[in-house]
Amino acid sequence: MVRKLPPGLNEQSFADAVASFRRAVGDKWVIDDDAQLANYRDPFAVLDPEHLTASAVVMPASVEEVQAVLAVANDTGVPLSPVSIGKNLGYGGPAPRLPGAVVVDLKRMNRILEVNEKFGYALVEPGVSFMELDNYLRERGIDFWVDVPDLGWGSVLGNTLERGVGYTAYGDHFAIQCGMEVVLADGDVVRTGMGGVPGSSTAQLFKYGFGPVYDGIFTQSNFGIVTKMGLWLLPKPPGYQAYMITLAHEEDLGPFVEILRTLKMNGTITNVPSLRSVLLDAAAVAPRSHFYSGTGPVPDSVSRKIMADLNIGWWNFYGAMYGPQASIDLQWQTVRDAFSTIPGASFYLAGEHDSPVLATRAKVMACQPNLETADIFQWFDNGGHVDFAPLSPATSEDALSQYAMVRDACLEFGKDYMGNWIVGRREMHHIQMTMFDTKDPDDRTRTLAFTKQLIRQAAERGYGAYRAHPAIMDEVAATFSFNDGALMRLSERVKDALDPKGILAPGKQGIWPKSLRGKGL
Amino acid sequence: MVRKLPPGLNEQSFADAVASFRRAVGDKWVIDDDAQLANYRDPFAVLDPEHLTASAVVMPASVEEVQAVLAVANDTGVPLSPVSIGKNLGYGGPAPRLPGAVVVDLKRMNRILEVNEKFGYALVEPGVSFMELDNYLRERGIDFWVDVPDLGWGSVLGNTLERGVGYTAYGDHFAIQCGMEVVLADGDVVRTGMGGVPGSSTAQLFKYGFGPVYDGIFTQSNFGIVTKMGLWLLPKPPGYQAYMITLAHEEDLGPFVEILRTLKMNGTITNVPSLRSVLLDAAAVAPRSHFYSGTGPVPDSVSRKIMADLNIGWWNFYGAMYGPQASIDLQWQTVRDAFSTIPGASFYLAGEHDSPVLATRAKVMACQPNLETADIFQWFDNGGHVDFAPLSPATSEDALSQYAMVRDACLEFGKDYMGNWIVGRREMHHIQMTMFDTKDPDDRTRTLAFTKQLIRQAAERGYGAYRAHPAIMDEVAATFSFNDGALMRLSERVKDALDPKGILAPGKQGIWPKSLRGKGL
Repeated sequence: MVRKLPPGLNEQSFADAVASFRRAVGDKWVIDDDAQLANYRDPFAVLDPEHLTASAVVMPASVEEVQAVLAVANDTGVPLSPVSIGKNLGYGGPAPRLPGAVVVDLKRMNRILEVNEKFGYALVEPGVSFMELDNYLRERGIDFWVDVPDLGWGSVLGNTLERGVGYTAYGDHFAIQCGMEVVLADGDVVRTGMGGVPGSSTAQLFKYGFGPVYDGIFTQSNFGIVTKMGLWLLPKPPGYQAYMITLAHEEDLGPFVEILRTLKMNGTITNVPSLRSVLLDAAAVAPRSHFYSGTGPVPDSVSRKIMADLNIGWWNFYGAMYGPQASIDLQWQTVRDAFSTIPGASFYLAGEHDSPVLATRAKVMACQPNLETADIFQWFDNGGHVDFAPLSPATSEDALSQYAMVRDACLEFGKDYMGNWIVGRREMHHIQMTMFDTKDPDDRTRTLAFTKQLIRQAAERGYGAYRAHPAIMDEVAATFSFNDGALMRLSERVKDALDPKGILAPGKQGIWPKSLRGKGL
Repeated sequence: MVRKLPPGLNEQSFADAVASFRRAVGDKWVIDDDAQLANYRDPFAVLDPEHLTASAVVMPASVEEVQAVLAVANDTGVPLSPVSIGKNLGYGGPAPRLPGAVVVDLKRMNRILEVNEKFGYALVEPGVSFMELDNYLRERGIDFWVDVPDLGWGSVLGNTLERGVGYTAYGDHFAIQCGMEVVLADGDVVRTGMGGVPGSSTAQLFKYGFGPVYDGIFTQSNFGIVTKMGLWLLPKPPGYQAYMITLAHEEDLGPFVEILRTLKMNGTITNVPSLRSVLLDAAAVAPRSHFYSGTGPVPDSVSRKIMADLNIGWWNFYGAMYGPQASIDLQWQTVRDAFSTIPGASFYLAGEHDSPVLATRAKVMACQPNLETADIFQWFDNGGHVDFAPLSPATSEDALSQYAMVRDACLEFGKDYMGNWIVGRREMHHIQMTMFDTKDPDDRTRTLAFTKQLIRQAAERGYGAYRAHPAIMDEVAATFSFNDGALMRLSERVKDALDPKGILAPGKQGIWPKSLRGKGL
């Protein structure tokens, strides 16, 4: 039995609500049978796979239908869980945070409303994927790129709302978002920024408008349903070259990050590069069993054999250079000179090394959406991952401290360290992608306990996470505890003001409506 | 009589409130005598100078004293009007939007709490001016610059909260703001972003944190009092060169903007340059009476004589180049090649022309705060200005349309066109700095009517303003009328949730608390 009822509803009142949803969006766009609901489960369930499941799914095709769905929810008290496409697999996919919520799947709202070739922006609905927008641009020969995340099948709007990242100079997607249309819980439709002026020609050109800037409160939030979003596109550069740097030793992390910060701050490295640990890159080549048949974490000796066999480093860095060839040549010389001070560092342009990861990164950093990064899920049978994603200052001290903390916890819990450091402007997203067998209850339990311990340990050292799987949202939110949780008090006040009946995504990012607060759901 | 009482208070209840404020911050830090209150009037009053005046001023020196002041306001119903330093002269200076509000002057909170030399950021209190922060950096030989606005005496925090701009690659101050501490109306202290994690080391490195991003709703708003703010500093470039391009003809605006957009989008021009009209630059040289003794707008024939006498253009463009000398040389060649297609365009590096504006712009774009831009207030006796500040897409069509609209209104109302186009990433702030004699009631009336007409006309064409003087905040807010004013409904819901008694800056940006809504104050 997949289906769960929402809190406070019984079979009859729920059946009445479903009938109302059917009237709102049409019979065929409401799902409430087990077989189809199974598609809306957490694809990488770290809890019991039957836990975070929906009671039904509704698929509105327009703003008016979204309003109609909200009206039903307000009337019946049925909580909703909006998803754009639901492909953020490591963060619960389409599964609701609140068991029994009705998923509002927005994938039918999939229009590319505008692509502007003068200014380089797109205005999209929630159901537009990176692949679709990329196709649109390439088919028309438009000289702009859409910055893409690791996997290209997800929603442009959804990824941006969750503050997902890509790997070019436009990798901070929320920073290049410009203009939103939001349907509030009561159905009111707001356009943010300059979009508030009817007929505005700058709604997708200027982020702020007049008065308070609201876009931020609709990201990682449950305050509204975003139905349109503007996003800036990257002017296609005159030239492009991806590269890989391998580091031979565990402790090279420290000096590498120091040099990296300097190259980021002085503008030599203009994109969002990433530094990946040996096992994460091994996972792109073959399952864990190919390298190691024992239980417990892959031993360092095996890691070193993998390094030799695959000709990769303990750490592997992937960056890209953009511009005219002369500028690329100069950047490459500067990058090599800087990192050559690390003994054993090796340098490869894309094509000079047979690493499948380098080939994939070369595509991603050139804004070619693909699904190749999903290869790493082969690490375990029934492989999934849940991420611990703390922010780290780009310093040797912080990077080594976070690494040691995670590595030691890996040893304690029998997990593999699979770290991916994604390098922003002044900080790094340190993403420990904890792989596990989604069909193994013991592995799930250990993985969750491991992740929760890391959240606590990190917070004790002042490190907070930037994103979280639904199973750990409350735990991460609790670490933002300054002034006895003033930030959550603010969120709850805004939540109660904008969604007094608590129908939108209860519990998302730890924000619960008044009626469900403190219930441990 | 300068002093005005707040709505709903009489002399006795107000005197009791003032006594409470004195207990909160100390006797000497409360002002309620006419002589000193006069310093808190609008310096460039476009309304009756006695209209937007305060009932008193309180000067807390700490977060605790801010909380104590808020407690008094909540107890007594006295509305507050927080200012950081109050030097945004064209936008009302320290004057409250609500006549009779108590100004909370935060200039005693003037600590530079941290400057980080690894990552280039500063953490400041409201009372820190650009000049003070700049001094701090230069005295210590810190290799970072703080991006500065036209006048350097204002608050770094206050300017950023009002979404003021500077002229380097860090000119969008809100975009480089990172981390806030906000005291809400009930005294609760919130830290945004990663600052929510106690002991966070990334509070000034990563803008977003976990969950909704709140910083935006505390800009151009009356939802809280910001008491600390992080701001990124610009890595000092290896070389710098400012330049000026003069354009001979009115109609050159169109092709110039087209070329400019291309150079901005392709990354040739990396800073925030500005394009100024002939009379705006003339005002930096001498008063209007030096050039023209008639009434009504300065005739075009006089403008052309000014162009010849000062060797400047109808339009004058000020940009800067940053980087190694070889890169600057290349940029200059590219810029000259691109704009040389406009007949009569002339090119000058700083030092090659005796324009005082070029000398000033060269300082501002090199992050050297100064007060030289204030010279333009000499245009009239008792000179002041009020700005009409619409956003324009960076296209020929939009720029010419906005220019014609403002120029024609100037002829109708007898005002001088003094336009300053500040060029952002994909848009331009078109700032018509309307000069007037602050002691001339007729000029004030015409200036205000002129500005209000432009707001209406611009909105009819889909152009909204990014900022406004208190006298026109309601008018500008009303142009954001999509869906019958959904944006303002949202603002009012948030206002009522966060400040239910309506004590913070009533009316700011057109947002009134419930008790004062629709009263035409």
